[in-house]
Amino acid sequence: MKDWIDAYNGRDWQTTTDGTVRYALLGLGWWTIDLALPAIQDSDLGEVTTFVSSSSEKAKRLADENGVDHGISYEEFHDGKASDAFDAIYIGTPNAFHLEYAKTAAELDKAILCEKPMESTVERAEEMVEVCEDAAVPLMIAYRMQTDPAVRRAKELIEDGFIGEPVSVYGNNSQPLLEMNPNTDQWRLDPDLSGYGTSVMDLGIYSINTTRFLLEREPLAVQSQMDSHGEAFEDVPDERSGALLALEDGVKMVTTDSQNAHRDTQLKITGTDGQIELRPAFHGKAKLHLSRNETTVTVEHENFDAEDEMREEFDYFADRVLTDAEIVPDGRHGLQDMRIIRAIHEAAESSDVVEL
Amino acid sequence: MKDWIDAYNGRDWQTTTDGTVRYALLGLGWWTIDLALPAIQDSDLGEVTTFVSSSSEKAKRLADENGVDHGISYEEFHDGKASDAFDAIYIGTPNAFHLEYAKTAAELDKAILCEKPMESTVERAEEMVEVCEDAAVPLMIAYRMQTDPAVRRAKELIEDGFIGEPVSVYGNNSQPLLEMNPNTDQWRLDPDLSGYGTSVMDLGIYSINTTRFLLEREPLAVQSQMDSHGEAFEDVPDERSGALLALEDGVKMVTTDSQNAHRDTQLKITGTDGQIELRPAFHGKAKLHLSRNETTVTVEHENFDAEDEMREEFDYFADRVLTDAEIVPDGRHGLQDMRIIRAIHEAAESSDVVEL
Repeated sequence: MKDWIDAYNGRDWQTTTDGTVRYALLGLGWWTIDLALPAIQDSDLGEVTTFVSSSSEKAKRLADENGVDHGISYEEFHDGKASDAFDAIYIGTPNAFHLEYAKTAAELDKAILCEKPMESTVERAEEMVEVCEDAAVPLMIAYRMQTDPAVRRAKELIEDGFIGEPVSVYGNNSQPLLEMNPNTDQWRLDPDLSGYGTSVMDLGIYSINTTRFLLEREPLAVQSQMDSHGEAFEDVPDERSGALLALEDGVKMVTTDSQNAHRDTQLKITGTDGQIELRPAFHGKAKLHLSRNETTVTVEHENFDAEDEMREEFDYFADRVLTDAEIVPDGRHGLQDMRIIRAIHEAAESSDVVEL
Repeated sequence: MKDWIDAYNGRDWQTTTDGTVRYALLGLGWWTIDLALPAIQDSDLGEVTTFVSSSSEKAKRLADENGVDHGISYEEFHDGKASDAFDAIYIGTPNAFHLEYAKTAAELDKAILCEKPMESTVERAEEMVEVCEDAAVPLMIAYRMQTDPAVRRAKELIEDGFIGEPVSVYGNNSQPLLEMNPNTDQWRLDPDLSGYGTSVMDLGIYSINTTRFLLEREPLAVQSQMDSHGEAFEDVPDERSGALLALEDGVKMVTTDSQNAHRDTQLKITGTDGQIELRPAFHGKAKLHLSRNETTVTVEHENFDAEDEMREEFDYFADRVLTDAEIVPDGRHGLQDMRIIRAIHEAAESSDVVEL
């Protein structure tokens, strides 16, 4: 146990401590400014040199306020301005804009760390994969759970037989979106910008992707239900959703997600011989609950929050870019989530089982 | 809070402290002998006068060992032997035998407390309802969660708006059946005796019924998946199962159940404004977790176990029988669970949405 705790937040993925990836950050909302920026500043292998926003005035003002060298507009970014100053871009914009920035980054031969879901539709995500593969630029989708120590230790334990054969999975990710951002015109409620919808695209993706990563089993078929009740949600089909996913080896996965519910995140994997649970699961401060025989161990990693999750993610990305190594959550990995999310939406609309 | 705690295990349902219901217990397995018998002995309004088993020898021996007056065979029970000695029967036999004992009890004008699920099929459950209604004998299905203080307090809080509008429900009930009873010929794995299957009939029924009771909302449509993997489960379709239920008002309910998995019970109801959770949920020692705003309260009712659950259930039944009052979990209430369980099995077989 002593060794296990001492190694708990060790970076089993790290292969280099040399070099620096210089970032341009696109999409200067609170997430980018308050979390991504300090995460990179706190990282070993990254620094922020460039801010990109809707106008050069806004970008310059925010760059000055945050001690960043360059502030440019999206137009200037597409024109290659300041492109000598960065090696990689971080895309934190609304989903439907990811592709156009990835295209320009590919032209400029820059590595890309793109927020999840990777785009608004499967087709646009496919195009992003092709563009990046054709240009041979590294593309990582920002699944920060995959470098969260709680998730990595959970994965090791599952591989070590801790839970026996996996039997069932439950994931929930719910939050009161309008309490967090009262603007009813926000992009997460606009299908032109968010894509298929809001609760599965924005929240359910955490349960889906983390389960794929932990169990290394893919969904084969999905069934689902979704609906919207409040006025603010009238343009999206899934203010709330529930899904039943058949994973490989007969693992039964059930999920619920809502953008208009009490905040709660839980991911629970039950096996023949034990259970591993993350609760809270997502958005920082993940707590790991390990049950086997009559014993439950709860592992709390004090002060590890969403910014720390982002730091680990950025350093993983930089490590892979600097060593030209394979990225696990790459474009094809993210594309599979897009296909799963589309299938969940199709299943809700048709009431049919949708196979993948 | 002081008043709330003091009233926590109060019997809000109790209407009389006078009178005694004398029971015949049918099905003398460990559940009846180790839990039902002491529960009645510990109750205010009940006493056990008669044991009924496969042979009069076995019944007499167990009656003697446990200080019970009469020990008779099922045949003798059907012939009316010792029927002056009891007012009610408790049916704790395999599911497929419930109807025949209920029929005789109705003929003998005895009240019936019948274990859940109430029978092996919808048709046999319907017949039980008819027989009891025609004979005007009280019939209660033994949903002991409905008189568990944790569940009753949860229901009051939901009615008081604690969670706002209900959004989603998650229920899990899993156990390692063969570790609890290594006999692979046990009746729970024999569809002739258990009915539609094993994990939904025996375990999922807890999530389904407790949710119906708590939310007063019925499932309108179900989708599900189930399969069996181990040799011992080859005769039943659902060693493990997952289901997605559409409840009234757009509430999304997801469940997982398994007879061959790590022991875990959880029932979680998430609303727009809060969350109420039972974990552990079933089989005694239910713990209540109440979350609203940023505050979570956990209520643990020390030493309240499955026997205490049974005592509350028996006294509720006796209270209703003695006062000739309406029973909430009556035959029609139990019949609805049978229809839901059948729908879940049909949905798994057809891969279709099955409406109720």
